[in-house]
Amino acid sequence: MTQAAVLLSGGLDSAVAAAWAQASGQRVSALSVDYGQRHRAELLAARRIAVALDITDHRVVTVDLRVVGGSALTDAIAVPRDRPAIGEDIPVTYVPARNAIFLALLAGLAEVVGASSLVIGANVQDYSGYPDCRPEFLRAFAQALRLGTKVGTSGGELKIQAPLLHLSKAGIVRLGVALGVDLSLTLSCYDPPAEAVHCGRCDACHLRRRAFDEAGVADPSHYTL
Amino acid sequence: MTQAAVLLSGGLDSAVAAAWAQASGQRVSALSVDYGQRHRAELLAARRIAVALDITDHRVVTVDLRVVGGSALTDAIAVPRDRPAIGEDIPVTYVPARNAIFLALLAGLAEVVGASSLVIGANVQDYSGYPDCRPEFLRAFAQALRLGTKVGTSGGELKIQAPLLHLSKAGIVRLGVALGVDLSLTLSCYDPPAEAVHCGRCDACHLRRRAFDEAGVADPSHYTL
Repeated sequence: MTQAAVLLSGGLDSAVAAAWAQASGQRVSALSVDYGQRHRAELLAARRIAVALDITDHRVVTVDLRVVGGSALTDAIAVPRDRPAIGEDIPVTYVPARNAIFLALLAGLAEVVGASSLVIGANVQDYSGYPDCRPEFLRAFAQALRLGTKVGTSGGELKIQAPLLHLSKAGIVRLGVALGVDLSLTLSCYDPPAEAVHCGRCDACHLRRRAFDEAGVADPSHYTL
Repeated sequence: MTQAAVLLSGGLDSAVAAAWAQASGQRVSALSVDYGQRHRAELLAARRIAVALDITDHRVVTVDLRVVGGSALTDAIAVPRDRPAIGEDIPVTYVPARNAIFLALLAGLAEVVGASSLVIGANVQDYSGYPDCRPEFLRAFAQALRLGTKVGTSGGELKIQAPLLHLSKAGIVRLGVALGVDLSLTLSCYDPPAEAVHCGRCDACHLRRRAFDEAGVADPSHYTL
């Protein structure tokens, strides 16, 4: 059985990615990042998901990205509401270099637990807006890690797996259902009004709602609006 | 005047790298990382160096790498003393994926302050032991960042500069002196017995001592042994 290190944010995508890693025969160590996000409630969701998936090695690493700033998710910048979900531009919810930071942390964990794969729930819906969800970035980052880690330079394998990369959000919901993931445990909202409650108006909520709708799956989420 | 984001650990190398960035005409924002290292005293050294170099934008980001573990610098693993300084193997003081994590954080800062270069004091003495100091890694990482950041994908420049890469430690001391850096402010020790005091016996202390000796520069450091 091979070992995977999985980024588990508490959202829909990473929960499905973690379940995919298990279904593909990998033992999962999960990493969540407490980075000063306003939607810290997602960390509680990550915990619930780890328990539901029987992931016993779930770690939460704290990195205070508020010191760096530059995002509506960490600063006193308003989270946009009720605008077209993802447009041409990079949204203000982009956190500078977030996936580079998260994947580097995940690589550290992979080295410690002996994982040969880093699993991330990045997908096509996001990479139009977030440059660090682009496949070219993930490929180049994996190459850098192979050149700059103990495992990579000792002839070991270290790859990045992004099983949701080319799925639609509806496709992710369907895959989650097929894998038996309890999607009601996940939290997508960027600005949740309470634990396990979705605002219903931010980009992430709009995408989530539409995904369940298009997938023809009953949406288990609590929305305030 | 262009802007550089510089990793400032509090050690000799990063102090000289920061001074080099200034001397090359760049305005410097400095980033130190409080990662749970046993030699946290280096953060005080970083502060002293920032003040001495008149770097007004100096940020300390906290990331608790003890959650990940796997290193004598963060765990209850003894720091080796009085052994050949750097050998063939990767030392136990290697912190899994540390430079990937630090450079990713630095890239985040670079995006926020509008820096076009990331400056790191990596050098040839280290990359025999630490894979994440190898030039191939730095090149590949820069490429990944260009593909995965806002600045890189908007046609902006984002490069990694490692001005000490091919210098000996003695060469770094000489460059520091030439640039007018007060090297007495720096702390290299992996396990300092007190603030601004070097143990004199760990790898980093041995390398530091030999560097001053070979450079023919009076060593301003306090060693207990």
